Amino acid sequence: MKENNRPLILVTNDDGSNVPGIRNLIEIVKPLGDVVAIAPDEGRSGMSHAITIKYPLRIALLREEENFVFYNCSGTPADCVKLALDRLVDRKPDLLVSGINHGSNTSISVVYSGTMAAAIEGGIHGIPSVGLSVVDHSSHPQFSAAVTFGEKIIRNTLSQGLPEGVCLNVNFPAKKAEEIKGVKVCRQTRGFWKEEFEHRVDPLKRDYFWLKGYFENYEPDAEDTDQWAIKNNYVSVVPVNVDFSAMHAMEKIAAVYEKCIKV
Amino acid sequence: MKENNRPLILVTNDDGSNVPGIRNLIEIVKPLGDVVAIAPDEGRSGMSHAITIKYPLRIALLREEENFVFYNCSGTPADCVKLALDRLVDRKPDLLVSGINHGSNTSISVVYSGTMAAAIEGGIHGIPSVGLSVVDHSSHPQFSAAVTFGEKIIRNTLSQGLPEGVCLNVNFPAKKAEEIKGVKVCRQTRGFWKEEFEHRVDPLKRDYFWLKGYFENYEPDAEDTDQWAIKNNYVSVVPVNVDFSAMHAMEKIAAVYEKCIKV
Repeated sequence: MKENNRPLILVTNDDGSNVPGIRNLIEIVKPLGDVVAIAPDEGRSGMSHAITIKYPLRIALLREEENFVFYNCSGTPADCVKLALDRLVDRKPDLLVSGINHGSNTSISVVYSGTMAAAIEGGIHGIPSVGLSVVDHSSHPQFSAAVTFGEKIIRNTLSQGLPEGVCLNVNFPAKKAEEIKGVKVCRQTRGFWKEEFEHRVDPLKRDYFWLKGYFENYEPDAEDTDQWAIKNNYVSVVPVNVDFSAMHAMEKIAAVYEKCIKV
Repeated sequence: MKENNRPLILVTNDDGSNVPGIRNLIEIVKPLGDVVAIAPDEGRSGMSHAITIKYPLRIALLREEENFVFYNCSGTPADCVKLALDRLVDRKPDLLVSGINHGSNTSISVVYSGTMAAAIEGGIHGIPSVGLSVVDHSSHPQFSAAVTFGEKIIRNTLSQGLPEGVCLNVNFPAKKAEEIKGVKVCRQTRGFWKEEFEHRVDPLKRDYFWLKGYFENYEPDAEDTDQWAIKNNYVSVVPVNVDFSAMHAMEKIAAVYEKCIKV
């Protein structure tokens, strides 16, 4: 790609290079700048911020057009971002977008999400970064609202940037654009995945366990949360910290741990 | 393990079941309660909060004594915690400890760390949780300071609990206990890993890339950071948020995103 003055936009996801989610996202950003896309070579949901240390990574060029290149990579979403920044771009990207994920990344799912890890990785590198997800896990979700509102959100981020150390976790109802009430900036819902591993026995009579579970929402009625927004046909936008330090707890923790442990 | 009134302590790590780090940690907690330990069956550093969705998990019993059981598991550190909570404990643990990791988890490494993901997972489930790491990546670090101060920190957490939504990221200099100046409660240092993927060619003449890099510290002189604490022979204790919402940025983000996107 030739160097020029257009914004450089890095695109990635965790569902792999061959899914509608990333194709929709690429179509949104192509008119906005030069696009470098790199996605895992197969679905890598639930990989969180994992990086590949023990094994080598491979990349393959899938498409090359004017102002657009598309690679896949044998690594995780975080690997994709790191590899792109070191090897695939000629300048620092002006924007990173990750998704559009097939499936919700509301509430605590932000922790497990490869889509959001890629956005957080962008934030770590000082790039305004947005993860986008549609609340429908199927292979062909309804992307209408995601495309319409996603484009507006992305244009905003590209023109205005984001506060330092903050990236965005955007979730869209799997609805048509006209059914959406608006955008709600909100916090991550308090809740957790209640796991129930299914116990099975393999053909060699050995036990194995398979992860399943359901989401338990501690605060289904809290109107300032992302789960509430989605349920009520809003697009949810959660500002996400790239720095995990619990500043509000410093004093309390210091009072216990600094005192008690002098030698 | 028989039900009783002793505290229940869940132990895990990301370096695998057969390393000195977790053996040291188990010895610290054995006198404090009933211990259930479960570690990955091989080193899984850099796995962050990855969970295993596509594949089954297996567990193997390694040791069983009075008030102590030790398993390994084919999954990630987060899988270990989830599997233990669903299948291996007879009551909710009073404490989760993860480590002692061979290698630093200061600064942004908290994001990539399987050790800290296990602690965060414990925090998500409302269990007071502590990740412990010694700043020495070798297979036989100097654990003296980690054992002496680790025990004191763990006793504190067991007796006093932690604020809701907060777990601890504890790093120890690889020093003797008598060289340590004290404990510093501090924030995560601002910085990032500057990647430099090494390009190589395999025997079949195909390209591959291997992750390497170095840590770039944006604020080496900031005395309230974990990197500074470690460099100056303190044990660092960083309170870590289980909820990633950037509350401080809500208003600013809302002003841009809620206004601009009304249909």
